[in-house]
Amino acid sequence: MRIGLDMMGGDFAPLEAVKGVKLFLETVANEAHLVLIGDEAALTPLLSDAQLDQSKYSVVHSSQVIGMNEHPTKALKEKQESSISIGFHLLKSGKVDAFISAGNTGAMMVGALYSIKAMEGVQRPTISTPVPREDGSYGLLLDVGINADCKPENLLQFAILGSLYSKHILGVDNPTVGLLNIGEEEGKGNLLAQATYPLLKENPLLNFIGNVEGRDILTNKADVIVCEGFTGNIVLKMAESFHTIAARRGIQDDYMQKFDFESYGGTPVLGVSQPVIIGHGISQAVAFKNMISLAQQMLTTKLLDKMRESFVK
Amino acid sequence: MRIGLDMMGGDFAPLEAVKGVKLFLETVANEAHLVLIGDEAALTPLLSDAQLDQSKYSVVHSSQVIGMNEHPTKALKEKQESSISIGFHLLKSGKVDAFISAGNTGAMMVGALYSIKAMEGVQRPTISTPVPREDGSYGLLLDVGINADCKPENLLQFAILGSLYSKHILGVDNPTVGLLNIGEEEGKGNLLAQATYPLLKENPLLNFIGNVEGRDILTNKADVIVCEGFTGNIVLKMAESFHTIAARRGIQDDYMQKFDFESYGGTPVLGVSQPVIIGHGISQAVAFKNMISLAQQMLTTKLLDKMRESFVK
Repeated sequence: MRIGLDMMGGDFAPLEAVKGVKLFLETVANEAHLVLIGDEAALTPLLSDAQLDQSKYSVVHSSQVIGMNEHPTKALKEKQESSISIGFHLLKSGKVDAFISAGNTGAMMVGALYSIKAMEGVQRPTISTPVPREDGSYGLLLDVGINADCKPENLLQFAILGSLYSKHILGVDNPTVGLLNIGEEEGKGNLLAQATYPLLKENPLLNFIGNVEGRDILTNKADVIVCEGFTGNIVLKMAESFHTIAARRGIQDDYMQKFDFESYGGTPVLGVSQPVIIGHGISQAVAFKNMISLAQQMLTTKLLDKMRESFVK
Repeated sequence: MRIGLDMMGGDFAPLEAVKGVKLFLETVANEAHLVLIGDEAALTPLLSDAQLDQSKYSVVHSSQVIGMNEHPTKALKEKQESSISIGFHLLKSGKVDAFISAGNTGAMMVGALYSIKAMEGVQRPTISTPVPREDGSYGLLLDVGINADCKPENLLQFAILGSLYSKHILGVDNPTVGLLNIGEEEGKGNLLAQATYPLLKENPLLNFIGNVEGRDILTNKADVIVCEGFTGNIVLKMAESFHTIAARRGIQDDYMQKFDFESYGGTPVLGVSQPVIIGHGISQAVAFKNMISLAQQMLTTKLLDKMRESFVK
């Protein structure tokens, strides 16, 4: 298995990306060969200093970088030699099995949706966030922002994708699914929630437990919580702001610490035909290490094959 | 000015309602005459024990109570002698100028919307929540649950109602208005947000500052934040859950304490033709005191006249 990593993406690249690679190789049981995409002149001394096992990685040179504020579609088209363009090219041609970048988020989304495309049967790929819970386990909330307007069928598909992710990546056996809503009983909520409820209830692939409310998001009531990306994104960013506030107020609490999502990982795009993980711009070594681990886990568990099976007509 | 108070509503009525009346009369500069609606046999000894100034209140007997779990419309229709039915009757006939209850929320909403009705020009009355901020001031978020599906025009009206509430009740001079959204720039967001943005931007009654994101809700970025009631309700309940978690984890923090919305007040229904305040079932003395104060403030500031003027064609 070969995992492609954009070494030039993110605010602290390439140094933190190199540190992340080192951390991964030294602390995670690894079976992957890493394909490090970036400017050779910048990478060579850093990789040399890091004293990595050279059999574990190879470098693919890229001469361009897509900046954080560039227009995604335009940049992807015009910068064919950028690390992100090359990453998707390698992924599409089968030379890597997964691709990770903490670079321009829009370009990563465009690449995921239009270069490698959605799985057959998936109407709208989605992004999720892990939801830390007090017992140390993680729930999953999706969509958290790429699908601002949804149809009931989209939410049903998010539930299926999320359940498989919860099971195979988060290790939850028979994950429960809840519909984010503003009342407990069936029939409550906005038109979208009302129409989605029966679809979730009747689908044999799901362990649906009904509606969950705002107060239930951080509890163990449901392992997978589905909503459209508008509400999900606001919930995600508000949860992050609680962490910011707690930090500013000097509140020392292990649990509150966990809402600092950006510092410890990336976001896989679910429902596309190959593993793509998008990191936050502020990613440092730990986040890079975690993203490589996640890509490896997505490949070893054959998560995407399981997703594909669920969408076979 | 006469303020009607349902003495039988809420989990701790009538005792906590009586305590709230006492607290109000003893600690708030008051000009209102209180009309206490409830079972005389239950109230008389409690009021006597409380040693209140008898010139400050009168009692209107009610022989029935609408239970917390009764069907709102049915109960209002069948229990004409209930404290809530009598309260709306007094309000409609001008015998009280405001009505407060911590009883059946649905019955209060039905009474507000169908007994006294919306102001002329207001399409959809709304409910809001104060948003505590770290500097001690309060923002306002609306709608928080009665309008799960909205049109752009509804959000525009919420912004106008919320701005007047922020100015006259929360004491914010020229309150800024933000549109809750999932991106900063105009054009971002779901279809509703995209269509609402220009309406807010062009309205001369509003001090619109653009989009605000989930991470901005608890900041001073906007004094009034508008959204449909689905997202607003989820945000509200999630914020409450942070308080619950902080309390459970023994986090001692004045600011976190303020997310315990239910314990310290009620929710005015904005956009109806007379002041109606709905309390939470768990309301105790302080919450009742605060709701009476709020009703008095809504009357002394002539808030509803100012709202009416804004909706004159």
